[in-house]
Amino acid sequence: MAKELKELTKRSVNYSEWYNQLVVKADLAEQADVRGCMVIKPYGYAIWEKMQRILDDMFKATGVQNAYFPLLIPKSFLSREAEHVEGFAKECAVVTHYRLKTNETHDGVVVDPAAKLEEELIIRPTSETIIWNTYKNWIKSYRDLPILCNQWCNVMRWEMRTRLFLRTSEFLWQEGHTAHATKEEAEERAKMMLKVYAGFAEKYMAVPVIQGVKSETERFAGALDTYTIEAMMQDGKALQSGTSHFLGQNFGKAFDVQFLNKDNKPEYAWATSWGVSTRLMGALIMTHSDDNGLVLPPLLAPTQVVIIPIYKSEEQLQQIDEHVKPIQEKLRSMGISVKYDNADNKRPGFKFADYELKGVPVRLVLGARDLENGTVEVMRRDTLEKETVALEGIEAYVKNLLDDIQQNIFKKAVAFRDAHIYECEDYDEFKQRVKDGGFFLCHWDGTEETEARIKEETQATIRCVPFGVEQTPGVDMVSGKPAKCRVIIARAY
Amino acid sequence: MAKELKELTKRSVNYSEWYNQLVVKADLAEQADVRGCMVIKPYGYAIWEKMQRILDDMFKATGVQNAYFPLLIPKSFLSREAEHVEGFAKECAVVTHYRLKTNETHDGVVVDPAAKLEEELIIRPTSETIIWNTYKNWIKSYRDLPILCNQWCNVMRWEMRTRLFLRTSEFLWQEGHTAHATKEEAEERAKMMLKVYAGFAEKYMAVPVIQGVKSETERFAGALDTYTIEAMMQDGKALQSGTSHFLGQNFGKAFDVQFLNKDNKPEYAWATSWGVSTRLMGALIMTHSDDNGLVLPPLLAPTQVVIIPIYKSEEQLQQIDEHVKPIQEKLRSMGISVKYDNADNKRPGFKFADYELKGVPVRLVLGARDLENGTVEVMRRDTLEKETVALEGIEAYVKNLLDDIQQNIFKKAVAFRDAHIYECEDYDEFKQRVKDGGFFLCHWDGTEETEARIKEETQATIRCVPFGVEQTPGVDMVSGKPAKCRVIIARAY
Repeated sequence: MAKELKELTKRSVNYSEWYNQLVVKADLAEQADVRGCMVIKPYGYAIWEKMQRILDDMFKATGVQNAYFPLLIPKSFLSREAEHVEGFAKECAVVTHYRLKTNETHDGVVVDPAAKLEEELIIRPTSETIIWNTYKNWIKSYRDLPILCNQWCNVMRWEMRTRLFLRTSEFLWQEGHTAHATKEEAEERAKMMLKVYAGFAEKYMAVPVIQGVKSETERFAGALDTYTIEAMMQDGKALQSGTSHFLGQNFGKAFDVQFLNKDNKPEYAWATSWGVSTRLMGALIMTHSDDNGLVLPPLLAPTQVVIIPIYKSEEQLQQIDEHVKPIQEKLRSMGISVKYDNADNKRPGFKFADYELKGVPVRLVLGARDLENGTVEVMRRDTLEKETVALEGIEAYVKNLLDDIQQNIFKKAVAFRDAHIYECEDYDEFKQRVKDGGFFLCHWDGTEETEARIKEETQATIRCVPFGVEQTPGVDMVSGKPAKCRVIIARAY
Repeated sequence: MAKELKELTKRSVNYSEWYNQLVVKADLAEQADVRGCMVIKPYGYAIWEKMQRILDDMFKATGVQNAYFPLLIPKSFLSREAEHVEGFAKECAVVTHYRLKTNETHDGVVVDPAAKLEEELIIRPTSETIIWNTYKNWIKSYRDLPILCNQWCNVMRWEMRTRLFLRTSEFLWQEGHTAHATKEEAEERAKMMLKVYAGFAEKYMAVPVIQGVKSETERFAGALDTYTIEAMMQDGKALQSGTSHFLGQNFGKAFDVQFLNKDNKPEYAWATSWGVSTRLMGALIMTHSDDNGLVLPPLLAPTQVVIIPIYKSEEQLQQIDEHVKPIQEKLRSMGISVKYDNADNKRPGFKFADYELKGVPVRLVLGARDLENGTVEVMRRDTLEKETVALEGIEAYVKNLLDDIQQNIFKKAVAFRDAHIYECEDYDEFKQRVKDGGFFLCHWDGTEETEARIKEETQATIRCVPFGVEQTPGVDMVSGKPAKCRVIIARAY
């Protein structure tokens, strides 16, 4: 793929433009010729695959099984749950016909009007309705519960303004849908999956997140409670990175899913749903990357180590090749993915810039002088620091370095985040400061009116009532009324 | 999931009914409430996941990378390749609108006529068009080639008659799409992927396949050559299980994908595409299963070993539990998936029948007398043979048994297949015998007329010109004209 390594726009100049360019230049994704849809390129998809694999194992460790439900949902299903249809039916792709035919001029195809569907079908924006319609036949007794299904699939929401990974009409995600015999068990599951998401974000993505519960306005359409993980990007804006919903009996009732409980009495099943999507790619990119390109956490980097030879003759290259081979093998045997790039048609400088752009965590450079001295130049992508170290034992050194990078970028992100969380009790101050980003911990009176006013006047929204933050008494900074709780307010993606 | 273990229809009574019942009773899949679509249930999906994982590794070992392309294809893209549109535009799901709105009576939603798309979008029936439209921007020079992309996704073809796994409107598959600088390289890749499919089918699915090339009539719409693997089901019918297409420069020309070759001259890129789908599940089920239920090859069975205790008292159960624990651990450490089913709410007889139905390859039964004698009863699912063996060393015994089952069901399938391949030179005899199934190796004059007549008069089709079969001279059994080649003719799914 032909590509020029032009400079990225700097974050300080235009953060948004920096992100858009980086996604394309680093070969992660590109805009498709279908409105609002993206092509996820091999390098981007390789990162997504790593995420999928790890998350999938984490889900399975909690007893979840994968399944697959239909892409298309009969229109009438959407209307069954009143809030749900409000939230999702509005902007969705509608299938109305099932056939094309050759046009009159025989140079194209047109929709065949004779092939009109009796009932239109919707491309799933989320699958609660079709899944609960299916669960109806699976659930008869408390013995059939819980049901813990997940599916990895594509979904579609007709978005007006789209950005690669952050908001696209079609995106990839997983959606878990569980059914339980008791309210307590469902609530526990919803919280459990939020913990799984938070653990994944922090341990693997090195993205610190704030866990909390959404305000009623910001809840998933049809949920009684929506739990969320909120990450802070380098511009101080929030990125909702995963949500887990306690759906109560709303879908059980809407699709008449009743079971006989232990006392042989009919009850509606309790539900949860939870999902993360390719949006996580956006969070990953925006949290760590810099003006030179991507910075990837070693645990998710498709290539963790790249080795580049510097040589002046074919003979020198052969010598380097010989030295690299056992290092490569040893690293691989340690489970480290390594690429030796001795391609002849690119200069070392080009390679350096390219792997920096791609975020490969560790770079080893080996020249003739290194061979003489028994050394190698090591660069870590996160700090761009270079060091010359002994070839002997380089594998253990690299392994430690990868661990260190993983921890370091997480610490750095935590420090950044923590430095941009402000307690704020004054609305004028808030309005002034929120423009520059950051999370504002504020007292809120719990009313929709206040929430709406903040949003209208500042474009900031209540991200969540955070867990693990002391709920001190106080006064709402907007209304002056007694506060119901403290919330995180921020502008968000 | 409530389920009664009613008897399966016997294969000899109604093979088709046996299949339909088995898929549902074994919890593999079920019909969705969306016309022609299926729900793949957790047990069925677990088998599909194993297939995916293995195939994905095999693809990657040949240099293929995964990516993701849009679900929706602009209608006009389909018309670009003349044969392709003929083959695929006819029966497909068409998106015409992007919004619903509340109806006048406020009790449902209707399509918003104001939200009509300027150009209709088609749900991908296959992705050559959208992918080659993308490749246009990726390919400028021979240095950008080859491109070896694969995607795992859902596709949709509006089928009139559907059957679970075998033919559904929506199905899951992988589609590989490669672009090459030379014709030779593309042809080699198309053949290489056919070999990968054949290797997977035989080694992992234990399904013997005949590799060959399709007649022009049976080719993929837009291909110059379609290679196929054909498996024989127990009713003697053929199941096309995977195809690999050499597409020549058809899509390169249709989407104007030109590159500068080594001589700096523009050339159109050469293409292949290749796919296998959830149809493989149908082949797997129909090749090995029997009147008691599924028979799964150990390499694809979600649970390879089930252990069932027989006890009369809580004390006996505890003793058995203690003995089972180390066996379970040892088996797991050997990479064998094992389930210990000591659930109290089902009788052993029920469990036996259920695991037989589900095709678990090996069953161990442990009772109080076994503990006294230091023995265990072992049953192998493929032959239903029982044996009492020493508990000491049972893990190695089980490991060998799993290997033996894998080989045995393959051998059995090969023997069955080979016993039902007939050389036939007489059309009357053919017409008589083809009703009972089997593959007929016949001389063919190479004309569409003969092919069409056979299909019309017998419902049988030319499956392929098989590789590795001697191409003896001969006379077409239908037309009496000199034969061009020998082909496999059969009725097919």
